[in-house]
Order: sequence, then structure tokens, then C-alpha cells
Amino acid sequence: MTAVEPDEPEQPAEPADAGCLDAGLLAPGRVGSAAEVATGDTAFLRALLDAEAALTRAQASLGLAPAAAADAVTAAADAARFDVHALALRARAGGNPVIPLVADLGTAVGDKHSPYVHRGATSQDIMDTAAILVAARTLDLVLADLARTERALARLARDHRDTVMPGRTLTQHAVPTTFGLKAAGWRSQVLDARDRVRLVRDGLPAQLGGAAGTLAAFGGYGASDTGALVEAYARELGLAVPVLPWHTLRTPVADLAGALAFTAGALGKTATDVLTLSRTEIRELSEGTGGGSSAMPHKANPVRATLIAAAARRAPQLAATLYGAMAAEDERPAGAWHAEWEPLRDLLRLVGGAARDAAELAEGLRVHADAMRAHLDLTHGLIVSERLSAELAPVLGRARAKEVLTRVAGRATAEGRPLVEILSEEPELKDFDLVALTDPTQYTGSAGALTDRALERR
Amino acid sequence: MTAVEPDEPEQPAEPADAGCLDAGLLAPGRVGSAAEVATGDTAFLRALLDAEAALTRAQASLGLAPAAAADAVTAAADAARFDVHALALRARAGGNPVIPLVADLGTAVGDKHSPYVHRGATSQDIMDTAAILVAARTLDLVLADLARTERALARLARDHRDTVMPGRTLTQHAVPTTFGLKAAGWRSQVLDARDRVRLVRDGLPAQLGGAAGTLAAFGGYGASDTGALVEAYARELGLAVPVLPWHTLRTPVADLAGALAFTAGALGKTATDVLTLSRTEIRELSEGTGGGSSAMPHKANPVRATLIAAAARRAPQLAATLYGAMAAEDERPAGAWHAEWEPLRDLLRLVGGAARDAAELAEGLRVHADAMRAHLDLTHGLIVSERLSAELAPVLGRARAKEVLTRVAGRATAEGRPLVEILSEEPELKDFDLVALTDPTQYTGSAGALTDRALERR
Amino acid sequence: MTAVEPDEPEQPAEPADAGCLDAGLLAPGRVGSAAEVATGDTAFLRALLDAEAALTRAQASLGLAPAAAADAVTAAADAARFDVHALALRARAGGNPVIPLVADLGTAVGDKHSPYVHRGATSQDIMDTAAILVAARTLDLVLADLARTERALARLARDHRDTVMPGRTLTQHAVPTTFGLKAAGWRSQVLDARDRVRLVRDGLPAQLGGAAGTLAAFGGYGASDTGALVEAYARELGLAVPVLPWHTLRTPVADLAGALAFTAGALGKTATDVLTLSRTEIRELSEGTGGGSSAMPHKANPVRATLIAAAARRAPQLAATLYGAMAAEDERPAGAWHAEWEPLRDLLRLVGGAARDAAELAEGLRVHADAMRAHLDLTHGLIVSERLSAELAPVLGRARAKEVLTRVAGRATAEGRPLVEILSEEPELKDFDLVALTDPTQYTGSAGALTDRALERR
Amino acid sequence: MTAVEPDEPEQPAEPADAGCLDAGLLAPGRVGSAAEVATGDTAFLRALLDAEAALTRAQASLGLAPAAAADAVTAAADAARFDVHALALRARAGGNPVIPLVADLGTAVGDKHSPYVHRGATSQDIMDTAAILVAARTLDLVLADLARTERALARLARDHRDTVMPGRTLTQHAVPTTFGLKAAGWRSQVLDARDRVRLVRDGLPAQLGGAAGTLAAFGGYGASDTGALVEAYARELGLAVPVLPWHTLRTPVADLAGALAFTAGALGKTATDVLTLSRTEIRELSEGTGGGSSAMPHKANPVRATLIAAAARRAPQLAATLYGAMAAEDERPAGAWHAEWEPLRDLLRLVGGAARDAAELAEGLRVHADAMRAHLDLTHGLIVSERLSAELAPVLGRARAKEVLTRVAGRATAEGRPLVEILSEEPELKDFDLVALTDPTQYTGSAGALTDRALERR
Repeated sequence: MTAVEPDEPEQPAEPADAGCLDAGLLAPGRVGSAAEVATGDTAFLRALLDAEAALTRAQASLGLAPAAAADAVTAAADAARFDVHALALRARAGGNPVIPLVADLGTAVGDKHSPYVHRGATSQDIMDTAAILVAARTLDLVLADLARTERALARLARDHRDTVMPGRTLTQHAVPTTFGLKAAGWRSQVLDARDRVRLVRDGLPAQLGGAAGTLAAFGGYGASDTGALVEAYARELGLAVPVLPWHTLRTPVADLAGALAFTAGALGKTATDVLTLSRTEIRELSEGTGGGSSAMPHKANPVRATLIAAAARRAPQLAATLYGAMAAEDERPAGAWHAEWEPLRDLLRLVGGAARDAAELAEGLRVHADAMRAHLDLTHGLIVSERLSAELAPVLGRARAKEVLTRVAGRATAEGRPLVEILSEEPELKDFDLVALTDPTQYTGSAGALTDRALERR
Repeated sequence: MTAVEPDEPEQPAEPADAGCLDAGLLAPGRVGSAAEVATGDTAFLRALLDAEAALTRAQASLGLAPAAAADAVTAAADAARFDVHALALRARAGGNPVIPLVADLGTAVGDKHSPYVHRGATSQDIMDTAAILVAARTLDLVLADLARTERALARLARDHRDTVMPGRTLTQHAVPTTFGLKAAGWRSQVLDARDRVRLVRDGLPAQLGGAAGTLAAFGGYGASDTGALVEAYARELGLAVPVLPWHTLRTPVADLAGALAFTAGALGKTATDVLTLSRTEIRELSEGTGGGSSAMPHKANPVRATLIAAAARRAPQLAATLYGAMAAEDERPAGAWHAEWEPLRDLLRLVGGAARDAAELAEGLRVHADAMRAHLDLTHGLIVSERLSAELAPVLGRARAKEVLTRVAGRATAEGRPLVEILSEEPELKDFDLVALTDPTQYTGSAGALTDRALERR
Repeated sequence: MTAVEPDEPEQPAEPADAGCLDAGLLAPGRVGSAAEVATGDTAFLRALLDAEAALTRAQASLGLAPAAAADAVTAAADAARFDVHALALRARAGGNPVIPLVADLGTAVGDKHSPYVHRGATSQDIMDTAAILVAARTLDLVLADLARTERALARLARDHRDTVMPGRTLTQHAVPTTFGLKAAGWRSQVLDARDRVRLVRDGLPAQLGGAAGTLAAFGGYGASDTGALVEAYARELGLAVPVLPWHTLRTPVADLAGALAFTAGALGKTATDVLTLSRTEIRELSEGTGGGSSAMPHKANPVRATLIAAAARRAPQLAATLYGAMAAEDERPAGAWHAEWEPLRDLLRLVGGAARDAAELAEGLRVHADAMRAHLDLTHGLIVSERLSAELAPVLGRARAKEVLTRVAGRATAEGRPLVEILSEEPELKDFDLVALTDPTQYTGSAGALTDRALERR
Repeated sequence: MTAVEPDEPEQPAEPADAGCLDAGLLAPGRVGSAAEVATGDTAFLRALLDAEAALTRAQASLGLAPAAAADAVTAAADAARFDVHALALRARAGGNPVIPLVADLGTAVGDKHSPYVHRGATSQDIMDTAAILVAARTLDLVLADLARTERALARLARDHRDTVMPGRTLTQHAVPTTFGLKAAGWRSQVLDARDRVRLVRDGLPAQLGGAAGTLAAFGGYGASDTGALVEAYARELGLAVPVLPWHTLRTPVADLAGALAFTAGALGKTATDVLTLSRTEIRELSEGTGGGSSAMPHKANPVRATLIAAAARRAPQLAATLYGAMAAEDERPAGAWHAEWEPLRDLLRLVGGAARDAAELAEGLRVHADAMRAHLDLTHGLIVSERLSAELAPVLGRARAKEVLTRVAGRATAEGRPLVEILSEEPELKDFDLVALTDPTQYTGSAGALTDRALERR
């Protein structure tokens, strides 16, 4: 621990019955997921220790510390040997957990090598690096679930390339579309999310700057080229090398915020469509395994979509907190940095959980093509009125076409009869192939071609 | 469990090494606080069980269930007998933890009385009631810490009623003020927070509506007057009686959001001032126990203020998520409700932690009146230029007064000499009592009177 | 203008073609509304001038200024005489529009009385007071539209007290409810909003503190009792008297944020239900005047509900910005204050527009009771399965009851036959009044009583 | 206008005195800026007309419309010929301004060619394309101002490569740094912003999908290859070609949100540092032209930094609203889309204004190197205590070194004497070059090298 770390205060007494602060009871969307584990306090402790060990190893690799010290620190940096709750309580005094951790790690390493623990670093170097490690590990899980989701959606798009259904705007039937195009659209946005997550993940940098970002202490410890040290440190961690210490240049955190909010939104789009189309009255889709009940067999709640939708409602505001923390004063801010820790973790595990749910949702989704087809007739044929307008106007003139269509549409609705029947009673229209013109399955435009093109993207 | 609850699915396998999800490692602002414990999963489980037991007792009190059943459920509703992590994992299938909890509670109660467990209720009745219980218990802790904070600030305001310091606007010295007025202002906003928290806390209602908010099942079980049942239930819980079931009328949650965001902001105001006034160059204030270091004795970080400031940065966006969840469709929404659970808990414990830190901050705050006094001279007397303008204009005329002041002010800054010296060289001003006019401690306006008046508020 | 106001810089050149910055083109939700006008720049200018005039009149009323000066300032404070765009451009240099406005107002008043313009005040006194005036005037409009909305919803609740419809949870039919109860719930939240808006509106305070909140300059101008001055000023404006200047104690702004976000959410609840129930497949509700089309008569978009829903999506984040601005340093913050101006205006006019739309929506809403009734049968009677569970279990035993119900429910769904038919084939059930038990209109629980009770609230 | 557009309702009466809704009075941060003009309603109207004209030209280029029609529409699509406020008012009925605009444009074009106006398109095609045009045009302005800012910051970094100043963490002096490194850091984040804005800007796509995103109507009008039509349309507009219509796949809007929130945060970092370092007590920096006052010459408010800081407080929540709008149901959502319009515009002009202010700030910034140097001594030399720890420990042993340093540090603070003096009284330390070791200007670590490296980035 360098001089900038305050001494440790006495440990506050633990409440008699702390109980479990978070077992996922309020978070069915991420409970039991790999992302939840990867972002838990134990995982974070592990990442903190990984950063400390990497620092000593990097120094050893440049001859700035004995190899034996690097080995000793690496061996001691075993999360199982530390009491995460006690560390957390002791973090209160100085405001971050690295201070007590360094003390304990020094003890674990022993007197001989403890001077090489955390040497030259500042708490933020370790906290930020650990956060980045946790983020990198969680994003890998997210990417795997996005890949599962994408594959399942691609299959749905292919299988239902020509499954016609109502296109809906402002809650109302507009013109026909296909479920294939809808699924291809969902997939294209999952791919957008994948691209953004991958770009951010690949650039995630280590953090190393020392007390105020000048790397000065490392010089005191013999590093003639601090650039080499930062590189060695990043290499040990499998992270990118930063151009500058980023203690108050929070580009990596802001980029994570953006990519994660985007991903939540992209999955939220699919979820909101599934929720709509699963409604009892619509039921064009249903989840593979909704929550059933023997006593209420009609009740098959779209639970996966519900939980994804909940994540999509929360992610933007968490991202906002992280974007807001960019305005960080000085060489380490008093508050903006501390405000990042939990929201970043929350975003990671929220999106991690949503990606798992999205994969399960997509893989299990049941498509009720018959219901889609049946709904095309709900407006008695008016769902193709756009087409009729276009076809009749050149022949009858626009004004007359509008007049005729208004009249027959009114009758179709009032009499509850198919538009084609009523149209066939109009002498003016006898030369039109009214059956074809009013067939909603023949008015899907470029839906098929668009689906094909979208599926070419990998 | 009533019919609306889906059957329980198989329990997903737990990850090999789940570790600890939250021991407070990322949350020094609330770690070890009573609010943290009061909002943890164990506390939430306890509140869920309290709600279930209250429901059966309420039914028994109206003769709708045997007294023995009420006793049995109450005895069985002991959080220590339930495995909160297992419940959380089993909550995934149906999307909420009440479903598996009711199953386990029924088992614990035994065959004879298990039909009286959760009878007539829906999961949301229990979840919402539990959230309200957790909120009520946490707000009581918050109120206690606000009271401590208020008392300490009142003492500071009284003690420093006449301690003069620079008033600052847009980062620059403006005119003098007093630290007493500043502390009185902080206190007045803590009282504003207290009033808002108390108002919300006193109105927190129980939730009871049954499957879709009509209380229909209770009629089936014999309740001729469901109003009496709701009243009995609320009385058992010490909560207010709702006019209507509020499954999708989220007034209580929105009110909590507002009161908590307000409190975070009010405490954040004090924290941001303490941070500013603690700066190395200013040091008019310092925290009672900053993080010290033997090797860097000048480093006494304002940690409490830092952590309060961090909370104030996060709370508004958490509140936004809760306000956004008011737009909840139908009789139970698919997502909006689920999106409330964690943000409400986060807000409660964030504010709970900040209130604890604020109390400690206020109680320990050290005021450096000498530094305040010294800074009044930093602008060589220009801090009273407003006063000089006002006094000279009627005598010299506004234009001439402005001309004179511009000239002498320029000289004071350029020559680094006190304004009073330079002014005394101006023949036109010989009749003014320049020493008094330029004494910043004699230009505090109504600061004292305002402080007195503000302190009258209880 | 007192000494704390910086001199005016040269006016930046206006762009050749500024055009219209905001004619409401992107805001159909509030375009042309009284709230839009009440919050426009011209209205704000008027409020700034009202504040200045009130200040001089208040001073005159205490003998601190000549009555003629008060008359002159009041007469000159006519918005039509000022160029709002030129003022805006000149506001850039000092960062607020009061600086150039005071210069122009002084000119308009003339040399004799101009010393009494803005005397003793600071820019923020005038800006904050103007914002509060604008808020008060807009909230009065909001309250009027909430009253219209409430009346229309009360009528709907009464008229449809017994109109049975499916209750829906997580998008699926659960048990029956009534439209009366739904409308009564909407209304109760509109009343909640009204109560919160009214409480805040009635407490809106004037702002008067002088350069740094000590009211010092007023003493220099002869005010022996600044409390009396503040009172006179507030009285002139019809606003509440603040205990302390609140330049950096932003309680009134935070309270506005909370009440407005609440109102947007409350109206958003109604809107989201209307949108759901207006869907082509559901159509239990429709707006009085949806956007129709001669060529697509089936297309009647629920435009009012759409625009309210859009407002409800935006308001929480605007409120978050305002809550975040509470952490305002010093006696006037560098940024937090400036960040309030537009979001507060946006919130006011967003909610003002939404309240107008809500009134029109509620007054014009068409209820299709026949569709509601028809949908109760969509699940072949399973919508009352909760009731059957409750009734059969005591007679057949819970296990047997569950077994029977599971079987018949499966058949009802598979065969598409009414549950009552299938149940009547079960010999065990011959003693039950199956027709009554399976009649969804006879399973509305306390819906009627709850509606009646909710309507008692005024 | 195609069939999907509802008929126009009667125009609501305009309020008697609408006045000016936005002349920038509440927005000194963007008033008079090119970005403000580029995002105003007139600019938006122009973009809507550009989109309509491009559509007809694209059809003509493929032989789907007469060249004369394209010419006629292009000629008629002149914003000056349309009444933006009247259009806005008429937009209320259908919920978007394209509906009345198409009517007016058709009239302007005349009967012969009016059938080719808006042919096959839907309102959202035009609205979205216009929003993208406005965004593209505004981002170009932002990029230009970021370039100015970057150049000015590069100059500052070079000029002050070796200007030593205190590094500060949690508001306290930590170890020395340089102003060059600080400016290089600011610049690096401006470059990060530039890269993100440019990436998004270059990919901004046109929107064309027809009523429900299938491009069906274009087929009816003869387009055998709708892909070619979309390409021609995008080419006419200078925008990217979308793979799919993105009516409810809001990647472009979310990407704008992220890049703009990032930019606001990056500029906010610079602003918050300038505000801190401009404080009366610190005054290491000052703005080129603060708001001065003849009567208060010490008052030079950092207005540019203040307004940038205000923008940085608002942008994250606006971005959150846009991310939240990604969860858009169906083929056009009822609310999520409408909720984007104003926040996107607000973000664009907020960041446009902040970029202008940042350029002025950076170009005019005055650096007071003497104050920086003087502050290094504020802690009597303790600012290099980290270095002393590192140097003494190997010689004296860690425990002894700590003991000595604690003692001398205490004395330095208590006696107000330079650390070097007190250290020189310690016999143990006689072999150290204490003058060099305690010289803060000799403890800047890699600050110079980091600055050089950062400046290599272009």
C-alpha cells in the first residue's frame, strides 16, 4: 500500500443478524445466471486480487520485483482466503475496499514480499481494473447468449419467411407483414447489440496511473519506462493498454453504459412484441414454457418476456448515471467515481440475465400461424385498403376511388361482411381481380426479400 | 396457493460456486448500516412471511379461518426456516418468489392448516405488502438519522450564527455570508426531507386485492365484507388501509420514489458544500474523521461527504425508473411491476446509508472560522463592492461612483493592496467611514436574523 | 442592476436565418395548449417583468422607494416592449437573461426611476421567481384539466359500475373485473395527482435573497426589516413567503418535479390501458375521435392516448434532472441551477399537454360493453377457474378437485367447448349450480362496492 | 398522401397570444448557435420537405414517376412557402406533422403532379428521415467545434507540458501533476467523442418502409425492386442505405443518444475541472472572458464552463429516454416513437451549444502557472510524502521510515514550516538530497512522456 492510502480505522461492529443481502430474491431475471455469479462480490474480490497479482508479476517481468515476490503474491491472491464481508465493512472508513484488501494481502504474503504488494499503485488502479475484468468476463457471457438468441431468431425468420400476419401501427392493423420479417428485424438488432458489445469488450483497458495518474511512484521503484510496465500489466490481465490513465477520463465506463443500454433495448424490443402478441385475444405467439397452472390452464404467463421487459425499463437510467459520472473533477473525483460501482454491476447482471432469458425465449417461442392468418380478416379485408386505393385511383380517378372505397368500407364494417363481397357488387369494379386484390397474403410487398437480405448478415 | 399461481417448475441447478452476491463490497456508503440489513433479502423474506401470517390472522379475526390455522401459519412464518437462495432460484419460473414461498409455507404449516395459507390472495398482494413493510421499517431508520443530522446542524447554526465567511456564486466570491446561515439552510432542507418522508411513511398502505383486484376469491371463502378483511389485514401489519387495491395504481411506490430522491438531494446539498469547503486550498471545513495517513498527513479525505454525494448522483435515476413504472397496464403489468423491486430497494438502502453518513458528518464536522475570516480578504476587500456601490452612488452620483470604484478596484487587484487603503487616498470619500464600510464582517445583512428564524422551525 | 451583475458584453450577431425554433412541430401533445403558451419564452419574459415590478412595488409599499418609481417600473414592465430574442442572445455572455433585461428595463423606466429597478436583487431572485410564477400559472391550467378528467372518469365509473370485462395479468385473462372499477381506479389516481399538484402549487414561494442570500443590499437601501420586504414582495406576486432564500435549497423545484412526474405517470396509466384495450383484436374501448381515413376506415388511431403515453415516458427523466440539481454548491451553483430551466419548463408543458389530452380522452371515450362481455368467453369459461377451485375443493377434497379441474380444463381448451358443458358431464358435480358458478358476470367480487367507495372521494 | 394517413381534422383555434415559445431565453448555452438553428422547427420543416422531394426524385430516377413531377415537388418543397405553426397545430389530430404537410405540399405542387407526392410512403418514413437529416447536419457542426476544441487543447498541452500543479484526489492534494497532462487528457476525451460522433454520423440511414415496413405500396406503384428505390432515396439525401426499415428497430436513434451523451460527458469533464480551478481560492485557471463588472472586478464568472456543466447534467437523462424508446412494439409504436422527437432535438442542440462553448473556453483559457506552482507548497511539502516513503523505507526500514515521516509531517503542519527544513534536522536523513527529494517539480513521474504520447494521436 502506497502512502496515498489512509490508515485503516477500526472495523465497525457487524449487525447481529445481517442475513443475506442479495440471494436474487428480487431478481428473477438474473437469479442463478452465470452473469449474476460473474458480477457478485466474490467475483469482484477475485478480480481485485487478479489485478494485484498481475501488478506484482508485471513488475517482476521487468526486473522491478523479485520473481519470488510475484509468485508469493499470486499464490496469496486467492479469494477463498479473504473474508469479503469483513473487507466490505472495513471499506467504509476510506471509502473503498482496496485499502483493507491490501492490508490483508500483505499479511497473507508475509513480511518478506509484502513490500511488493500494490507497490506504486493507487486504490483506483485496482478498483477500475477489477471492474473492467468483471465487465469483460460478463460480456463474454452476454455475447454467448446473444449468439444463441441470434441463431434461434434466424431459424424463426427462415421458417416463417412467408407466414403472413397483420402489421400493426399505433395498436391498429395497418397492412399485412410476415412473421419472418419481424423475426429478422429482431435478429438484426441482436446483431447490432453484439457488434456494439464486442467492440467495447475488445477495447477494455487496464488501469494504472498511481496516486494522481502520473505513474510517479513507479519511477521511484525503478521503472525507467512506465509505458513498458503498463503494457506488461495489461498483458498479464488480457486487457487493452490504455494511452493514458483514465482515472477521470471515463471513456471505458461510458462505452460500457452505451453498449449495455443498447443491448437491453434491443432485447426489450423483442420482448415487447412477444408480450403484445401473446395476449389472450391475440395469441399469435406463446412462450415455450409459460407459467402454467392446473387450475387455470388458460394462464400461461409470458414470464421470460416480462423479465426482459423489466430489464429494458431499468437499463437506460443506470446508463444515465454512468454517463453523468463522466463529469469527474480533478485526478479522482469525490463521488462521481463511487457512484459508478453499483450501477455498472447492476447493468452488467441485468443485461446478462436478459440475454439468458432472450435465448430461452427465442429458442422456445411457439408461433401460431393460424391465428396470424385469421386476424388478417378481422377488419373484413380493410387491411388491404392501401392497395385498393393505389389500384383504383388510376382507373377511376382519385376522387371517385376514394368515394367508392369510403362507401364500401363503411358497409364492410357495419354489415360485418368481407370487403370482397361488397366490392363485387360495384359495377365499376367488374374488371378488377378483386379476389387477388383483397387477398392479404398477396400484399406483403418486399417482406420476403427483406427477410432474405437481413439473414445474409452474419 | 390459489388457482392463479402457476405450478412450480423444477428448480434450476445452482451454479457450482455462486459465492456472495452482495456483502456490501461495492457499497461503502451503506455497508453495515441498519438500512442495509433492513432491505436485504432476508429482511424481505421476513416481510413476505409477515404478510402471509397477517393475512391468515386477519381471516381468523373475522371468523373466516380457524384461530389454530392463524397460530400455525404465524408460527411457521419464521424466516430462519426457509432457504432464501433456493426460493430465489425457484422464483425464476413464475417470475416472483411468492409462488415457491407459498408452497414451502404450506408444507411447513402442515396439511391441516395449509388451505388457510395465502387463501384468496395473489402473489402481488404479498410482494407489494412486503415491499411496503420493508420501506416502512427502513424509513423509520432514515427518520432517526435525519433527526440526528438535524440536531447536529442546529447546533452548528447556533454556534456559528455570527461566523462570517465568503458567500460564493458561480465559484467566485460574491458578498459575505455566515456559516450559521449555511448550516441553518442545510438543516431546513433536512427538515423538508423529514416532513416528506414522514408524510409518505404514515400513509404506506397494505395491499390486498386478489387475482385481479376485485377481492373475489375472499367472497368465495366466506368474506361477506371484504372491506373489513382489508382493514383487519392492514391493522395486523400496522399499515394504512387502501381505498382500492393498487396493483396497477402505484401511488405508494411513486410517493416513496419522490420522498427518497428528495432526501438524497437534500443530503447531497450538504455534502457538495462540505466537499467544496474541504478542498486543500479552502479548508474552511473538515470532516471529523477523514481517512488519514501517517505518511500523508495532509490527506484527510472527506469520505462521508463523498459517499453521500455518490448517493445523490444515483437516486434521481432510480426514482425515474419508479415513476416510469406508474404506466402499468391491465390489472398486473408484464414488466413495469417487476422493474420496481430492485430500484426501490436500492433507493431505500442508498438513502438509508446516506442518512447515516450525514448524521456522522454533521456531528463530527469541524469548522475553521479563522480560514473563513482570512478568505474574506482574498479579494482585497472587493467582496464588499456591492455595498460600496450602494453607499457611494447616492452621494457621488451613479456614474461617478461607478467610475471611482472601477478605478480603485483595478488598483486593489493589481497592487495587491487592501481596498480600504486605496479608497482612503480618494479625496471625494473622506467623509465615509471607510473602515466600517469595507469591513466584510459588517456586511452580513440579515444572515443572523434568517438563521434565528430558520432555527425556530422544529 | 446591482453590482453583482456583470456588465453586458456586445451582442453576438444573429444567424442570418434563425427561423422558428419551436412552433410545436415536434410536440403534438402540447401544441396549441394553454400550458404551452403559459410556458413559452414570451410568458417567461412576462413573469420576469412581473417579478421586477413586484420588487419595486414592495419596496415602495415599505417606503423604500417612491411610489412614482413603482408606478413607472410597473408601467414599463410590459413584455410587448421587449425583444425576447435579442435578450436571449445577450444572455449568453453572463449566462442568464436577467442581466440584459435589467439594462433594458432601466432604459425603459428612464433615468429618474431606473435606480429603483432591480434594486438590491440578484439575477437569481428574478429568474427563480419568474419560474415559480410560470409554474403556478401552468399548474392552475393542469388542475383545471385534471378536474375535467376526473369528472369524465367518475361518469364512466358510475355508468359502467356493472359492466363486466376480463381482468388481465401479465397479458393473460385472470378473473373477471368491471370497467367501472377500472375507471374508478384511473380516477383515484387522477385525484392523487390533483392532491399532489395542489399541495405543491399552494406552497410555491417567491425568491428574494440578494447577491448571496443574506438580503444585505436591501439593508443598504434602508430596509430595516428584510422580512417585511420579502413578505410584501411575495404578496405582490400572490406567492408564498419563503422561510429562507432558496437559491441553493431547491425544495420548490424538487417538489414540482415530483408532482409533475407523478401526474404524468397517473395519466400514463390511463393511457396505457386505453392503448391496450383499443387494439384491433380487443377493441373494448375506442377514442372518441381517432385519426380516421376514408381509405382505411378500420384505422382509428388512439392518438390522444399515444401522446399521453409519450409524455409519461419522458417526464421521469426530466424530473431526475431536477432532483439531481438539488446538490447545488455554494450560494449559487455553476451549472446545477442552469440545468433546471429548460427541464422544468419541459415538464410543465408536457404535463399540461397530457392533462388536456387526458380530459379529451376521458370525455370522448367509447366503451364497447359487448366486446368486453364476449371476451369473457374467450377462455371457454376458464376465467372463473379460481372460483371453481375454491368451491369444489371443500366438497371433493383439494387433490381430487384439482384433478377434475385439470382434466376438464384441458378438454375445454382442446375441444373449444364451454367449460360448463364439460363440467356438467361430471357425475361428481351434479349438485353444483354449474351455470351460476361458471358465469363470469357473477364472479366480480367486490368490484361494485370498491367502485362505490372510490367514487365517494371528492 | 397514401391511404394510411388519416384525414385531416379541422384546425384548432390558435390562442389569442401565443407569443414566442422558444427564442432561447432559457438556453444561454445554445442560444444563437448554428446548432440551435439547425435543429429548430424551421430546419425540421426543411428536412421534412427534403425527404419528400428526395422520395419523388428517387421514384423518377427509376422511371416510377415523371421527371416533371420530381421537378415540381422539388420546387414546391421550399420551407418558406409553408406555415410551420399552422402545420404544428394541425399535427395534433393525427399525432404527427407529416399528415398536414403532405396535404399542403400536394396543393403547392398542383393537381397534375400531386399524386406523386409522398407516394407509397408513410408518415414515419418522412419524420425519421428528417430527424436523421437534422442530426447529420447538426453533428457536422458539432464535429467542427470539437476540432476547434481539440486544437486549442493540444496547444495548451504542448505549452504547459512542464507546468507543474497539484494533483488532487477526493478534493485533497495528492501528488504533483502537470497542466500539460491534464489538458492532454481533456483532449484525448474530446477525440474519443469525435470518433464516436463521426462513426455514428457516417452510418446515419434514410428511412423508407411504407405503411408497415414491407414497402408494399411501392410495388403497387410499379417498383419491381424496392431495394433500388431505397438506395436511390438514400443517395438523394446523402444518407446511408438501411438493411431493413427501422420503424421499430431504433438503432440509429440509440446510437445518436450514446454518442451525444458521451460528448456531453467528455466536455463536462473539462468544464468541471475549469470550474474547480477557477475558484477564487484556487484561480489556477480563468476563462478568457468571464462576466466582469466594473463594481465587482473580482467577479469573473466562468460562464462558458458553467453552461457546459449544465448541459452535461441534462444529456444523460435525455439519452435514457431515447434508449428507453427502443422497446417499441409492433410496426409503429403508440408513444415510444413520439417520445423520441423532442429529446433527440434537445440532445443535439444541447451538445451543439456545449461544443461551441467548449471551443471558446479552450481557445480563451488563461493558465496561471504561478498559482499552480504556489499551491504545491500549500501542504508544506507533504505533497511529495509518497516519494519520501518510497525513498526512505529501503534505507531506514519501513517501520522506522513511517515513524519518522509521521513525526516530521505532524511538525510541518503544526509549525507551518516547510518539510525540507524539518527533515534536515533529522540526523538519520543527512545522506539524502532532501532539497531534490522534496521538490514537487521534480516529482511529476511520467507526466511529460504521457503528454507527448497522447499528443501523437490525431
